[in-house]
Amino acid sequence: MPQTKFLLDESEIPTHWYNVVADMPNPPTPPLGPNGQPIGPEALTAIFPMALIEQEVSAERWIAIPEPVREAFRLYRPSPLFRAHRLEAALGTPAKIYYKNESVSPAGSHKVNTAIPQAYYNKLAGIKRLSTETGAGQWGSSIAMAGQMFGLEVRIFMVKVSYDQKPFRRSMMQTWGGQVFASPSMETQTGRNILAKDPNNQGSLGIAISEAVEEAASRADTNYSLGSVLNHVLLHQTIIGLEAKKQFEKAGDYPDMVFAPCGGGSNFGGVAFPFFADKAAGKNVRLVAVEPTSCPTLTKGTYAYDFGDTAGFTPLMKMYTLGHDFMPPGIHAGGLRYHGDSPLVSQLYHEGLIEAVAVPQLATFEAGVMFARAEGIIPAPESNHAIRACIDEALRCKESGEKKTLFFNLSGHGHFDMASYDRYFAGQLEDFSYPEEAIRASLANLPKVG
Amino acid sequence: MPQTKFLLDESEIPTHWYNVVADMPNPPTPPLGPNGQPIGPEALTAIFPMALIEQEVSAERWIAIPEPVREAFRLYRPSPLFRAHRLEAALGTPAKIYYKNESVSPAGSHKVNTAIPQAYYNKLAGIKRLSTETGAGQWGSSIAMAGQMFGLEVRIFMVKVSYDQKPFRRSMMQTWGGQVFASPSMETQTGRNILAKDPNNQGSLGIAISEAVEEAASRADTNYSLGSVLNHVLLHQTIIGLEAKKQFEKAGDYPDMVFAPCGGGSNFGGVAFPFFADKAAGKNVRLVAVEPTSCPTLTKGTYAYDFGDTAGFTPLMKMYTLGHDFMPPGIHAGGLRYHGDSPLVSQLYHEGLIEAVAVPQLATFEAGVMFARAEGIIPAPESNHAIRACIDEALRCKESGEKKTLFFNLSGHGHFDMASYDRYFAGQLEDFSYPEEAIRASLANLPKVG
Repeated sequence: MPQTKFLLDESEIPTHWYNVVADMPNPPTPPLGPNGQPIGPEALTAIFPMALIEQEVSAERWIAIPEPVREAFRLYRPSPLFRAHRLEAALGTPAKIYYKNESVSPAGSHKVNTAIPQAYYNKLAGIKRLSTETGAGQWGSSIAMAGQMFGLEVRIFMVKVSYDQKPFRRSMMQTWGGQVFASPSMETQTGRNILAKDPNNQGSLGIAISEAVEEAASRADTNYSLGSVLNHVLLHQTIIGLEAKKQFEKAGDYPDMVFAPCGGGSNFGGVAFPFFADKAAGKNVRLVAVEPTSCPTLTKGTYAYDFGDTAGFTPLMKMYTLGHDFMPPGIHAGGLRYHGDSPLVSQLYHEGLIEAVAVPQLATFEAGVMFARAEGIIPAPESNHAIRACIDEALRCKESGEKKTLFFNLSGHGHFDMASYDRYFAGQLEDFSYPEEAIRASLANLPKVG
Repeated sequence: MPQTKFLLDESEIPTHWYNVVADMPNPPTPPLGPNGQPIGPEALTAIFPMALIEQEVSAERWIAIPEPVREAFRLYRPSPLFRAHRLEAALGTPAKIYYKNESVSPAGSHKVNTAIPQAYYNKLAGIKRLSTETGAGQWGSSIAMAGQMFGLEVRIFMVKVSYDQKPFRRSMMQTWGGQVFASPSMETQTGRNILAKDPNNQGSLGIAISEAVEEAASRADTNYSLGSVLNHVLLHQTIIGLEAKKQFEKAGDYPDMVFAPCGGGSNFGGVAFPFFADKAAGKNVRLVAVEPTSCPTLTKGTYAYDFGDTAGFTPLMKMYTLGHDFMPPGIHAGGLRYHGDSPLVSQLYHEGLIEAVAVPQLATFEAGVMFARAEGIIPAPESNHAIRACIDEALRCKESGEKKTLFFNLSGHGHFDMASYDRYFAGQLEDFSYPEEAIRASLANLPKVG
């Protein structure tokens, strides 16, 4: 009987994160301040602890994972690597398909991998409270859980429309002791100003970020916490790919292609960067970021300096962007609705070292259902993007007879996304071609730099 | 750093189920037919395959698990045994606390452990369709997934009020290809008769069982499938306790007390029976069934022959019962609202070989939240009963200074029960003392036997 799961003992949890900067052909582009000049680490000390700022700018290849973080990881790590025998059989492909199951974390996705170290470093720095924003709630759940583990108060500004529509993610955060506010809220000046003008404002991720940053910047005991995009977040996520490499060794195999969903980039960077290290050393491995056709940042965007948020509060980052005021259609993979992308992922893509593909919404749900019927686990809509691209490649292998080894990251389960599956089954989901004109219009508003 | 998870390799999935009948001091009491005489296996062939009927009446100690079933188990088994270091620290107890994490199955609970073999044996017998009922949806999800794995059509009659209130469990079943009908439905004569009289009937588990059994009895290609109570179901669940014993060996420890929630009994039997084998051989281990004070079958019921269902369609089984027309209050642990209990569990309890305790609803949610904040996982309301009893014992150990080893079964996660947690946080849940008079009234209606 062929092996299905490749497990690691908890003593095999990696001792170091991998920093892709050490293997990039060119140094990362720096973030710029309002004056167009590179900003230094000191500009971030009001909202981040120094340990994370150091990781943000580090060029060291290996960064040690603190023991209390590794100990907290033991609650759910190492995550299993699965060989998808049943999916392979259902597709009739000669390709071998593997997936890393990040849905095993208590919050249900890979986001916990960075929430735990962020909570730890903030606690170590004497911080008492973390503030953050959340849209669909995956990040908010993860930081609520991590804050609880290290005795930090966690205040989560949740976009009002999600707060009302996704009560169960909210309940999850509350179960872990998180305080959840519908944003705009009365907790901040930003929120109060907006509500004074428009008491029925339904909120946006931009507003929620502003509220969270205002709290962090205005209180010495409070820091801000971000769940994707930044270098230190991608660094923390490399634990996924590092474990996977050990597990492929046990399986006596190695991937020809690695697929991961790509929104802000932490999921893709987390699984793909450790394989990039091998690629930089000459190994033949293709790394594929999978994004929605409705928000095609890498495949249809421009590589330019842009704001990280909609409102233009953040430093400028050089990245693939659809323009910071691009509003993607309301697809169900909330985690992939981001106008930009991680600067590290963007730079590697710009230099032709990684690939990107965009897939339409209906095809991703079709792939997710196919996966669930073969392998059991019901995937998150974000994960369905990687599954779609992987299945497409497996079907090409069926045509060509190639026995490729394919690998994707199952970033989370879909237990809190069943309403999206419902709409899919009811025929109420649509495909969106990317709105060419909308992209042109928002790209015309890119900030002028240099 | 002390070890947190005790894993088994998938080659260590048990090869045999353990049949407690072999170690019981007295043979099990037989089910009785409408004439008060014991019914033979042949009476069940219209709705069950012979392999399951043989297991239902077997006295063999070990029953081989077919290889295709073990292979299907590899999707999620062996499940991990956790040492709850963080919960111990939060309680400040000298007791050691372990839990088996059955929430790792794709359907989120231990119910899959019997759904898979039931689907397999029915497929082997040439059956094309399974029919079953479901209340809250945990069993329906499990059998939908298992049916998909073996190419069986699965038809699930879901109590209408749950069908409307728990749409996400329904979506889950549909994702795995299950057909879900709000019961009463137009699919059966039973359903049509009820709807003709009362088009707005909200359904009941009794009606749903009748619909599922009618389908199975009236079609040669269709069998019925049940998720608890019966001997073969408890047999299948012993895989939990068998794995746990191997894991305790690896941990170099052994439980002084084992706790499991007890409704129909498959959860308790599954984890406790393999330890009962040791107890029968002279080992000192206490086995504690935990039930809600609102439906206190073992602690306040009577040991007598009664119907398994509300309507009185099933054979009579000798068991602890509150009377088949006892209607427990609408607590949130839907899986524990059963008037009776497994005949095997009942007989062991009657003979003083296992223990039972009843816990009130609010205290179970308090325990569940305490567990989630320490260990991450948000438990199902049913599991919270075992957690409560285990925490109470750990707190007694804190008083006495005893270093007992405590073990409970985390039967499932609470991802589809967040509305119940919401009500708990909002102060909208109540405790129910057991309604003495209601029990007396329903016990007065026990069928007369012999």
